[in-house]
Amino acid sequence: MIAKDIARTASVKWEGDVAKGHGSIVTGSGKVSASYSFGTRFSGDPGTNPEELLGASHAACFTMALSGALTRAGHAPTSIETTATVHLQASGASAEISEIELVTTAVVAALSEAEFAALAADAKSTCPISKALASVPISLQAALKPS
Amino acid sequence: MIAKDIARTASVKWEGDVAKGHGSIVTGSGKVSASYSFGTRFSGDPGTNPEELLGASHAACFTMALSGALTRAGHAPTSIETTATVHLQASGASAEISEIELVTTAVVAALSEAEFAALAADAKSTCPISKALASVPISLQAALKPS
Repeated sequence: MIAKDIARTASVKWEGDVAKGHGSIVTGSGKVSASYSFGTRFSGDPGTNPEELLGASHAACFTMALSGALTRAGHAPTSIETTATVHLQASGASAEISEIELVTTAVVAALSEAEFAALAADAKSTCPISKALASVPISLQAALKPS
Repeated sequence: MIAKDIARTASVKWEGDVAKGHGSIVTGSGKVSASYSFGTRFSGDPGTNPEELLGASHAACFTMALSGALTRAGHAPTSIETTATVHLQASGASAEISEIELVTTAVVAALSEAEFAALAADAKSTCPISKALASVPISLQAALKPS
């Protein structure tokens, strides 16, 4: 089997010191651009932050993996909705991602809750972003939704 | 020292099977929204993908950490530019993040290359997103730029 290496990029330009400066983020596709600062990350200033971008990456990866698992099992989903909540534990000058919570609901015809739960657990463990985040505790709640 | 827990979210809605379906991503701040699909992730269709979002998160975290390290060392930067390149190695149905490359340049007054390299290495190892990605090899190139 031939392995394929796909390289994706994102760039950031920061100006100034950490407290009063600000940064601008743009991804290689050009489809995502946003600004951030100490205030948008550690308090409630409007703007993005690295943690919600990590959540976006993880929720997107998991949800596509779950669509794939359902599709391969003969139960292509009508729809899937996932929210990732990323917890940043900050203590003085040190901070770490302490937990990521994935909560997913899906509309899928003719599938039991138990089968859905098993496929969702499989998607959580095989999605590349989950594997890259192996050192972070990741929780999953998965439930079917009436169509 | 009191620890502070900051929770950030992102949500994804996916519709359809994995090959022909598509998803929409929105972050909790509302500042990032984009759509993606199998084609925007695994081939060249226009759109975002989880890997460039991971790169955006990591480049943003690293760059803010580097501004912080420089600021605390008494060398607040004029500007810092960082690109993260995220490599997805896909092989059949399996895929993994095989490497992340960080390349950073900065305009900083009165600082030697060696001091800058040490502070950049410190930022790489202490930024929370780097720590969350501890299971992925992360490389760093850091150089000062003339102002």
